[in-house]
Amino acid sequence: MSDQSVTPTPSPAPPPPTGPRPKMTSRGRTTVPVDSSNSSSTDVPEIEYFGAPGPRGFPPLTEYLDIWDVDMMKRPDESNKMGHHTMLFNSDYLIVRRGQEFQVKITFNRPYKPAEDKFAVEFVIGSSPQYSKGTYIPVFPTKERQSTWEGRITNTSDNVVTMGITPAANCIVGKYHMYVAVLTPHGIRRTKRDNSRDLYILFNPWAADDAVFLNDEKERKECVMTEMGIIYHGAYDDVAERDWNYGQFNYGVLDACLYIMDRSEMPITNRGDPIKVTRKASAMLNSRDDEGVLVGNWSGDYTYGVAPTSWTGSTDILLSYTSSKMPICYAQCWVYAAVFNTFLRCLGIPSRVVTNFYSAHDNDGNLKTDIILDENGRIDRNRTRDSIWNYHCWNECYMSRPDLPPGFGGWQVVDATPQETSDGMYRCGPASVQAIKHGQICYPFDAAFVFAEVNSDVVFYSRSKDGTMEPVKVNRTHVGRMVLTKSPGDVTRRDITNQYKFSEGRTEERTALEKAEEYGCKREKSDPALADVDLVLPTLEISIGDDFELNLEFINRSDEQRTADVYINGSVVYYTGVTSSEFLFRTPTVNLGPQKTVKETVMVESKKYMKHLVEQANLHFIVTGKIRETGQIVTAMKVVTLWMINIVSGVAKVSEEMMATVEFTNPFSFSLEGVYIRMEGPGVMMPKNRYYSLIPAGSSLTWTELFIPHRAGETRVIATLDCPALRQVHGSLQDH
Amino acid sequence: MSDQSVTPTPSPAPPPPTGPRPKMTSRGRTTVPVDSSNSSSTDVPEIEYFGAPGPRGFPPLTEYLDIWDVDMMKRPDESNKMGHHTMLFNSDYLIVRRGQEFQVKITFNRPYKPAEDKFAVEFVIGSSPQYSKGTYIPVFPTKERQSTWEGRITNTSDNVVTMGITPAANCIVGKYHMYVAVLTPHGIRRTKRDNSRDLYILFNPWAADDAVFLNDEKERKECVMTEMGIIYHGAYDDVAERDWNYGQFNYGVLDACLYIMDRSEMPITNRGDPIKVTRKASAMLNSRDDEGVLVGNWSGDYTYGVAPTSWTGSTDILLSYTSSKMPICYAQCWVYAAVFNTFLRCLGIPSRVVTNFYSAHDNDGNLKTDIILDENGRIDRNRTRDSIWNYHCWNECYMSRPDLPPGFGGWQVVDATPQETSDGMYRCGPASVQAIKHGQICYPFDAAFVFAEVNSDVVFYSRSKDGTMEPVKVNRTHVGRMVLTKSPGDVTRRDITNQYKFSEGRTEERTALEKAEEYGCKREKSDPALADVDLVLPTLEISIGDDFELNLEFINRSDEQRTADVYINGSVVYYTGVTSSEFLFRTPTVNLGPQKTVKETVMVESKKYMKHLVEQANLHFIVTGKIRETGQIVTAMKVVTLWMINIVSGVAKVSEEMMATVEFTNPFSFSLEGVYIRMEGPGVMMPKNRYYSLIPAGSSLTWTELFIPHRAGETRVIATLDCPALRQVHGSLQDH
Repeated sequence: MSDQSVTPTPSPAPPPPTGPRPKMTSRGRTTVPVDSSNSSSTDVPEIEYFGAPGPRGFPPLTEYLDIWDVDMMKRPDESNKMGHHTMLFNSDYLIVRRGQEFQVKITFNRPYKPAEDKFAVEFVIGSSPQYSKGTYIPVFPTKERQSTWEGRITNTSDNVVTMGITPAANCIVGKYHMYVAVLTPHGIRRTKRDNSRDLYILFNPWAADDAVFLNDEKERKECVMTEMGIIYHGAYDDVAERDWNYGQFNYGVLDACLYIMDRSEMPITNRGDPIKVTRKASAMLNSRDDEGVLVGNWSGDYTYGVAPTSWTGSTDILLSYTSSKMPICYAQCWVYAAVFNTFLRCLGIPSRVVTNFYSAHDNDGNLKTDIILDENGRIDRNRTRDSIWNYHCWNECYMSRPDLPPGFGGWQVVDATPQETSDGMYRCGPASVQAIKHGQICYPFDAAFVFAEVNSDVVFYSRSKDGTMEPVKVNRTHVGRMVLTKSPGDVTRRDITNQYKFSEGRTEERTALEKAEEYGCKREKSDPALADVDLVLPTLEISIGDDFELNLEFINRSDEQRTADVYINGSVVYYTGVTSSEFLFRTPTVNLGPQKTVKETVMVESKKYMKHLVEQANLHFIVTGKIRETGQIVTAMKVVTLWMINIVSGVAKVSEEMMATVEFTNPFSFSLEGVYIRMEGPGVMMPKNRYYSLIPAGSSLTWTELFIPHRAGETRVIATLDCPALRQVHGSLQDH
Repeated sequence: MSDQSVTPTPSPAPPPPTGPRPKMTSRGRTTVPVDSSNSSSTDVPEIEYFGAPGPRGFPPLTEYLDIWDVDMMKRPDESNKMGHHTMLFNSDYLIVRRGQEFQVKITFNRPYKPAEDKFAVEFVIGSSPQYSKGTYIPVFPTKERQSTWEGRITNTSDNVVTMGITPAANCIVGKYHMYVAVLTPHGIRRTKRDNSRDLYILFNPWAADDAVFLNDEKERKECVMTEMGIIYHGAYDDVAERDWNYGQFNYGVLDACLYIMDRSEMPITNRGDPIKVTRKASAMLNSRDDEGVLVGNWSGDYTYGVAPTSWTGSTDILLSYTSSKMPICYAQCWVYAAVFNTFLRCLGIPSRVVTNFYSAHDNDGNLKTDIILDENGRIDRNRTRDSIWNYHCWNECYMSRPDLPPGFGGWQVVDATPQETSDGMYRCGPASVQAIKHGQICYPFDAAFVFAEVNSDVVFYSRSKDGTMEPVKVNRTHVGRMVLTKSPGDVTRRDITNQYKFSEGRTEERTALEKAEEYGCKREKSDPALADVDLVLPTLEISIGDDFELNLEFINRSDEQRTADVYINGSVVYYTGVTSSEFLFRTPTVNLGPQKTVKETVMVESKKYMKHLVEQANLHFIVTGKIRETGQIVTAMKVVTLWMINIVSGVAKVSEEMMATVEFTNPFSFSLEGVYIRMEGPGVMMPKNRYYSLIPAGSSLTWTELFIPHRAGETRVIATLDCPALRQVHGSLQDH
């Protein structure tokens, strides 16, 4: 076929090259790699000549205006930090908020002559500064020439010019470098790079044009400026409190927040958008997928880290993550929410931690939690695989939602606790609270998931021998029983359930549920007839170690005799609703006369449950039963949170110094081993730890610390005690 | 403070334990781990007694009905595979589609007596079978007792019962185990686990109740049943074609698709939802984040794998991934789209590959691509960092969208090519094409991103010396110039641009753009005055190695003299629009009389561009200029795709055998080194490779393969040649 002298012949293919595979480059894919680090930067040249040199080379630029000094006016008592609500930051740099003017003082070599001198203040962020991307912004002092950031001269005195600069209300949030450039006809001459002139620009809830604008000073004070918080837990009818030091203004915390975004490789250009920042952070606060901040652990074994119950604040966690660059061990939901809250408040996005009591979980947006009973009405623990968390904490943050139709701005749910099934990634939100309330769950992000957390039905099935199941009772009010957050400005609880749901039975409630079903939420449709026997479990407030009585009240609403075969289960559960071990099982038969109420009392001895306790010391009682005469099923569930002993801690003033004291007595008849006590004073004292290898039964300890408060104002010290046998002991006291 | 004899004293905290940190468990977090593997399974017991044994132990169950044999009726010519459109699958198992009846034959030890015998056919998927999760489904032969899947007896003859089973139209898609259970008063007796009775259940575009129902037989034939496809590339005015063998019915491909979902740890319970399956797969088809199927590489260096241009089909890729469990090297957009298409068609989700010409990329949902010119109108390559892909391929798949308001079902965009900025994850879609067309980009998933890919404006900025920039020209028609896919049933092109956009200038177009802007898409608002001089670049069809003339046409529409200072840039670009190297630069000045048209011709010599060629051999010409009299800017851009020489391949019948021949002559004046030639025949011949270490200049080769077709019908063989100096050579021929 070919008349060439050489005919090619096939040969075995060469072996693939050995050695490590080269690192992927972006060559051919993008002109420059995406700029996703706020810590790397490119220096802007000191001299930029226009055009080619003349016959005698470039002319000197020194004959033009020269810059002698730039004062960032960054002292906490100067107007920049006061006016921008950043005076609490413990930082060496100027920190301001976008969409609001700040001042810098520039000293020239001679008085500035507006008619002939041309200069610009330049801001640069990231390694690939570009005007059209908002990563390079020149600011001019004259009205005639303005960029996206406004500039004006607010004062002139001798050689000193004070310039007012207003960053765009949607500019990138992060750390900028600052230069002053003098424009000459031959070129541009700049100040040398000087790190002390770096400045941080944050979100601004006080600026009407900012997407996080929140027009309520009390809320802003709470959700941006307040460092000390309360996180609710326990049970809806027996709420417990946990103090938390968010510490968003502590030294190093702001840098840690920027590091988190760098670590996530979030493009710099996205960092002005609170939707993108909060979504990214919800993924990054947990270690799943991306080596993020906190490792979740619900197992009870915290040997290789700090028990979730032991943390009292976010500062330690954020600073350790930044210095070790390794995920921190360990967290459970309130730790995720608390550290996320620090991140949000630090960057200036208004935020709060909320607690949802009886939170349906991991059900992938389905509105059903299944409890399987056998044919006799006894719970089948092998087949009951869903759990309802006693409580779950997440965050709300405040922002407009230009990506959604009008009406869905305001509070948004974000959740950093790794969920198994939220769109396949360990992140959640921002989901509009308004959209959740109205069942408009078609809007991003993850609204369907949060809707299910507050709206799921608990469905009791009776399983027949051949494997099929029939729903026998549907409880539509158990899940999402109450949503709490701290009131702004004081330490009381605020019930915000009605921001998530319309009241039971209102038309709007039905409409919202129907809307959610339209968008694919699956509910249990069957409506099994209600039994004519009611079963009520009372609210109990029990301290750890108490013996107590559990009273079951059976109410026969029929005019006939009823006989109930009852199963009473008492077990120790994790706060996730997962059963650890059963400590009580009774099967009484209860006879009920027509229209009669009968009490059945079960004695619960502490020695039975104490040895099984895990973690947060929750007892879970499930009572199920079948009415002989009608075959109907009755059920009742109750979580009892055992109250812990408190640590007494006190704060007192000793001239300049303060004194904080922790006191603890081991109330048990056994020794406590491996005990950590942690003390910290938000804004006044960094966290301190003590370790006691043994605290014998009945013995007491006293630990006193002297310290000089970092700053004036209210002083509060919180303390926790943590050991394998006893978790979640804390106390706090305020100076008055 | 304490009167105890022992007072605890603090001691140094013990060192943390050494050794590897224990693997995280789900203890305390969930009752059972999420079931996310279709390959692991739990055996169902052969005997399940009810209640406790009697005084003489359990009674024997053998006196009841016994099962002798189960016939899955899985031969390709039996009604199951024919009726379910699965006859093309090369598989040892029964493969059916959900929402449609299939038959199994059960042989008992005696005739079945409906009045007294009770049996059920049971289906189990995953390791945690549960009725309420749809992972354990009993099917009963009687009307009185029905589960979520319908059963009925369609025939009875002697001991043999034929049972018709209809899986729910929303059931989980994957591989099920099947059992037959006989129910006796004392317990349940089952068939032994027998793998040959396993069956696959797929999505069903033929079933009206299935979310992927597509009511058009021609489309279904193309988008589910067709194995051979055409993928378009090149330029909108000079379209090139690439044959691709999707091979969705090849041996092992269906298992590979299930393995991909297992590897992604997608919960089994989500696998009936085409929205979740396609979203997960879009993340899993690329190796970023999750060790998915294909490693992207645009660098031109493919030493450590197969060049993207070298692949001819998906089978190799999917089978290698499944056996090696390692990402496969390398892919570019059409490889991602092609393998994704195999995945979708294999599972029964109607899908097609589409090509968008001039696709805006990595711009994070902003509707702007920036090109920076200096003050003289010359392109500033250092500052122009956005690129427009010459073309980009993605997939459309067909499904209803119950999670969105009505009107957004139908074709959905999914894209597996790793984008830098799609919601922070390397995945994209499903995004409703209808939503994109109407600018309703607030609906999940990633509609804003795809909207920008077809609707961005190209903005030319003039950059002044002080660093500020001013838009001088906005081209609103360049991007998303044309969207193509293969016509169903034949090999012609189908222009589907109007499914993504309304025609230029129509009211609806403006409305859609305004809607998108409402939802946060940022457009260039300024509308710089059009220059009164037009610049036109002609369409060119050039073969590789040709010298050619580039003709620039300047049209002066004013009544005055115009002078244009012009910059002509010719460079070699990747198909991603990224510049590799400049090979031509001219700066003519063009004088234009009033109302005159002037042609400027530039000679382009092959020796100038040949040595710079990369990959797909695209030349990019950008002409910019400034009109001296008015200061206005003129611009024109043109991508020229150089046509490659073809490989001649032929197919002929030799009695039972077929013969395929590849012929190639090196047309260059230099030798080609390290040449791979690959040949495959969709459905008739597995891929084969040959390697030639050297093909001297001008020499020819002939490679002939004999093979016996796997099955009857049309025979088509495609071949590609690939070496570092010459990519993208292919050919195909059909038997007639």
